[in-house]
Amino acid sequence: MGRPRSEEARRAVLDAAYAILVETGLGRFSTEAVASRSGVARTTIYRWWPTRGLLAIESFLDAFRAQLVYAETGDPLTDFRALLDSLVRVLSGPAGLVAASVMAEAQSDPETRRVFLEVFSVPLRRESARLLGRGIEGGVLRADLDLAVVLDAAVGAVYMRLLLGQPLDADWSNRLADTVLRGCLPGPDR
Amino acid sequence: MGRPRSEEARRAVLDAAYAILVETGLGRFSTEAVASRSGVARTTIYRWWPTRGLLAIESFLDAFRAQLVYAETGDPLTDFRALLDSLVRVLSGPAGLVAASVMAEAQSDPETRRVFLEVFSVPLRRESARLLGRGIEGGVLRADLDLAVVLDAAVGAVYMRLLLGQPLDADWSNRLADTVLRGCLPGPDR
Repeated sequence: MGRPRSEEARRAVLDAAYAILVETGLGRFSTEAVASRSGVARTTIYRWWPTRGLLAIESFLDAFRAQLVYAETGDPLTDFRALLDSLVRVLSGPAGLVAASVMAEAQSDPETRRVFLEVFSVPLRRESARLLGRGIEGGVLRADLDLAVVLDAAVGAVYMRLLLGQPLDADWSNRLADTVLRGCLPGPDR
Repeated sequence: MGRPRSEEARRAVLDAAYAILVETGLGRFSTEAVASRSGVARTTIYRWWPTRGLLAIESFLDAFRAQLVYAETGDPLTDFRALLDSLVRVLSGPAGLVAASVMAEAQSDPETRRVFLEVFSVPLRRESARLLGRGIEGGVLRADLDLAVVLDAAVGAVYMRLLLGQPLDADWSNRLADTVLRGCLPGPDR
């Protein structure tokens, strides 16, 4: 029965890590504090997460992902709006401060940046691209869409407002979706 | 002749500060190092810039601004493209690493964030908005454009790629301008 016990311990570590992150930010986050709070041995934690950065990011992404809305309404534009809106909503709360700390840490720690990209940024982009791709297939979005750049603009706008401490709310999220999608609609090349 | 001498000293301080920033990043940047390199007394520097953060950011913005292209060709869309392209070009060099350091510092220091907004971000947005506004007046851009969100998307995309360490080059800059401007063109509400 080693597997279930490991899974429970893994869950306890991620939950404890996330609680500490939200309370204190990345500055005072340590594997020792997580071990103490979770009751899981430090050596075990180090075996799974060699650095505190990897543990912090995975715990954050784990909690973060659970809050993003991956809807399947049959209308890919509605689903894309819901995903963008959930990203904005989650980042407007405590997770936003953690995300900003992680982005800051990533500027001096390449490993933090790599994990952020691999575990969070790339999957979010892949899902967003899938939704817009379905819009193209369905003919509601134009076929020559520059998907990569559209996602840079949509997600980049959210990150920028987060990092500059500017309000993230549902009204702005709707305006962002309107603005981004308008450039994606089919129509004559004007 | 106190004024010219002050201006010379101010210039020497900003140049020394920028050179140190480029060489070592914000981590090891200190007013003492700037005083030593510029030959201007520490007390004088502190009188002008009460914190190292304010000095670092102003020196960076001073050098940065000089490299942005504020063209006046009579075609506001061309001018907007040139400004966006120059922003991307400058951030792809050493100034990009400094900008990323400043953005990281801003996550734990509200004063750094305030100065970044006030001295750099707001003026850049104001100039960009002015160019797009002229496009609206001239009828080449649609009148109901959500200018604030268009700029969030355009500039946010640049910041995001910078902070995630992804390539910033002229090809991507052109694709960004194409994508952003396409959503700004007049046309039937589809």
